[in-house]
Amino acid sequence: MMIATKKQYESLTEKTAIHFAKEFFAEDAVLECREIGDGNLNYVFHIKDSKNDKSLIIKQALPYAKVVGESWPLTLKRAVIEANALKKHGEFAVGLVPKVYATDEELAITVMEDLSHLKIVREGLIQLESYPKLATDIGEYLASTLFSTSDFALHPFEKKKLVSDFSNPELCKITEDLIFTDPFFDNETNDFEPSLRADVEAIWQNGPLKLEVAKLKKSFLTEAEALLHGDLHTGSIFASEEETKVIDPEFAFYGPIGFDVGLFLANLIVQTITRDGKQRIVILHQIEQTWEVFTTRFSALWKSEGIDAYKDTDGFEEYIVNKIFQDALGFAGCELIRRTIGLAHVKDLDGIVDDEQRINAKKQALQIGEKLILNRRDISSINAAISLLERVNK
Amino acid sequence: MMIATKKQYESLTEKTAIHFAKEFFAEDAVLECREIGDGNLNYVFHIKDSKNDKSLIIKQALPYAKVVGESWPLTLKRAVIEANALKKHGEFAVGLVPKVYATDEELAITVMEDLSHLKIVREGLIQLESYPKLATDIGEYLASTLFSTSDFALHPFEKKKLVSDFSNPELCKITEDLIFTDPFFDNETNDFEPSLRADVEAIWQNGPLKLEVAKLKKSFLTEAEALLHGDLHTGSIFASEEETKVIDPEFAFYGPIGFDVGLFLANLIVQTITRDGKQRIVILHQIEQTWEVFTTRFSALWKSEGIDAYKDTDGFEEYIVNKIFQDALGFAGCELIRRTIGLAHVKDLDGIVDDEQRINAKKQALQIGEKLILNRRDISSINAAISLLERVNK
Repeated sequence: MMIATKKQYESLTEKTAIHFAKEFFAEDAVLECREIGDGNLNYVFHIKDSKNDKSLIIKQALPYAKVVGESWPLTLKRAVIEANALKKHGEFAVGLVPKVYATDEELAITVMEDLSHLKIVREGLIQLESYPKLATDIGEYLASTLFSTSDFALHPFEKKKLVSDFSNPELCKITEDLIFTDPFFDNETNDFEPSLRADVEAIWQNGPLKLEVAKLKKSFLTEAEALLHGDLHTGSIFASEEETKVIDPEFAFYGPIGFDVGLFLANLIVQTITRDGKQRIVILHQIEQTWEVFTTRFSALWKSEGIDAYKDTDGFEEYIVNKIFQDALGFAGCELIRRTIGLAHVKDLDGIVDDEQRINAKKQALQIGEKLILNRRDISSINAAISLLERVNK
Repeated sequence: MMIATKKQYESLTEKTAIHFAKEFFAEDAVLECREIGDGNLNYVFHIKDSKNDKSLIIKQALPYAKVVGESWPLTLKRAVIEANALKKHGEFAVGLVPKVYATDEELAITVMEDLSHLKIVREGLIQLESYPKLATDIGEYLASTLFSTSDFALHPFEKKKLVSDFSNPELCKITEDLIFTDPFFDNETNDFEPSLRADVEAIWQNGPLKLEVAKLKKSFLTEAEALLHGDLHTGSIFASEEETKVIDPEFAFYGPIGFDVGLFLANLIVQTITRDGKQRIVILHQIEQTWEVFTTRFSALWKSEGIDAYKDTDGFEEYIVNKIFQDALGFAGCELIRRTIGLAHVKDLDGIVDDEQRINAKKQALQIGEKLILNRRDISSINAAISLLERVNK
């Protein structure tokens, strides 16, 4: 449903958001509104009908991002991309993304399911909360959204239309710069602690590493394999012990399948660095389980929904899954490095209070990142990848 | 320039084409018009001012293709794609494509440079005509059009806009089916002589071959490396001893660079099969020269025009050129096979009158095709590829 509104963008306030939301509630609703976003990229209005115990979210994209200190103009089209990606992914990953009730392109608004009873997974993991469904749900989400939007499942006309609909140059550019380029050169957007300088300079001078990153960046720039979430870190996932919901696909575009898989794995890997003992084993198990569920579901979809003329050709499915695995390891490596020395850090690492521990954790993240990028073609299984984590952790 | 016209499609006739063309000639022009196309996909009107010795071509796309016996509806949008590809490629491969004077989207018309003083290269090669500039011009054409429309040369916003502008699902589907799928399965579109049946059935049952074709098809479906011509066989090239012009890019889209390179090489390879002695050496030399000029120019452009952050990273340029080479060999192999047993044949082979010679030539084409597809990763240079041709020819 498209809402009819005035045709010029303006920022909502808690008051105007309530006015806007009325039509989604009962006549006798008593509405309260709170802005609960971090205000960097979007407004997030939580609107509740206290009388009938109903609620929803109105998310509005802001025409700028406060990422580099000052504000950075950013296309409002990302609100449309995000809403359309939620709808498209929701067709396949049923129950694993928020429901979209309505959109307004001019106001860059999406009206959607209220998930405020859930917690952002990054926060929860840092607090050692338990997410017994996280790995299986994300494995399922990855397999169903990525397989179902690929050439393996779609008629080429439908797939190519989606490729055009989800062309997302501005948001892709952020990834191209911040994940694949800046951290590997002495660029002013980088941000790292002085005690890491020797490690960082070693990365900038590591020719073989940069060659592999160049290949991964080329894959990100050219390989339109499936409709990606495009930013699937643990801050883009809401969960509880019972539920998992993937949010915020504003970076969605057609790219290499391994990118979504790798970003999620990298953000779990960060937790293997910051945790010890049993708590660490929980995460190692989630890494293994995510990959196992992904491949099992991907393979089942290949058999039941696959339309590729070569789907039964010996070795083709294995070739594809192996390519996704190698790509995922490489992209995970890039994510680990950029989250440590690039512009956008993660609280898992930055939040470690003890200086020595924090620096040590960051050095491990860099080491694992390098090894994943350089050795991705020789890592033969998810267990071999986990062994690599063990070796660095010793 | 867009011509203002009535807004509904209708086929031109020699009479209405003259009327349409008047504005491109002098007041006192005495115009003659002849339809010189083969009428399968397009009308081609040759319009000449006999008084002032000027001429031009009006090409009009027909809303159907007579490819499979009966007519097959085909998007008129291909006229826009073709005109835009000529203009875009013409920016870089100066003088190597016809000039576009005007277009009319509704009538699916392109008004362009008259090249009727040149001959279609396939015809000329069959008649053993000499094209001393063909290999160097096509090497230059390939390097300049493909490098200059890739991420190596363009800002990502510009490149992604071109990817969307040149989305060409219907024409790509023809290639996906006729080059990458049908010839490798017992499909009714295939067309081959009974004496080839054993060889053809061996292809249908060749698992390792089909696995490699599956990978090449996947590359064609997903890898948006550069704005391809999309159908660069020797029937898409006009030439004389002095000039080369690449025509008919209606299959243009963003795809893997090796596809254009491979199609051209495959159509030269066909000539190495049908020729002997010195005449054959001419073609072997053209194959070598095309690749050498392509890589030399590509490398020069990489250095002078490249904008990739990793352009100076050791090994990256070599990796890219090597990928293009391996892809080109594989795509060449697919083209050789489909031109022998698929729907659309080539006169080079079908025109051989002697039955035994013709069947022998076709068997060689199939053998070379298979070897190129299966061994493309182990063929280390263009000379190694030429040695492979020698071995099959013995």
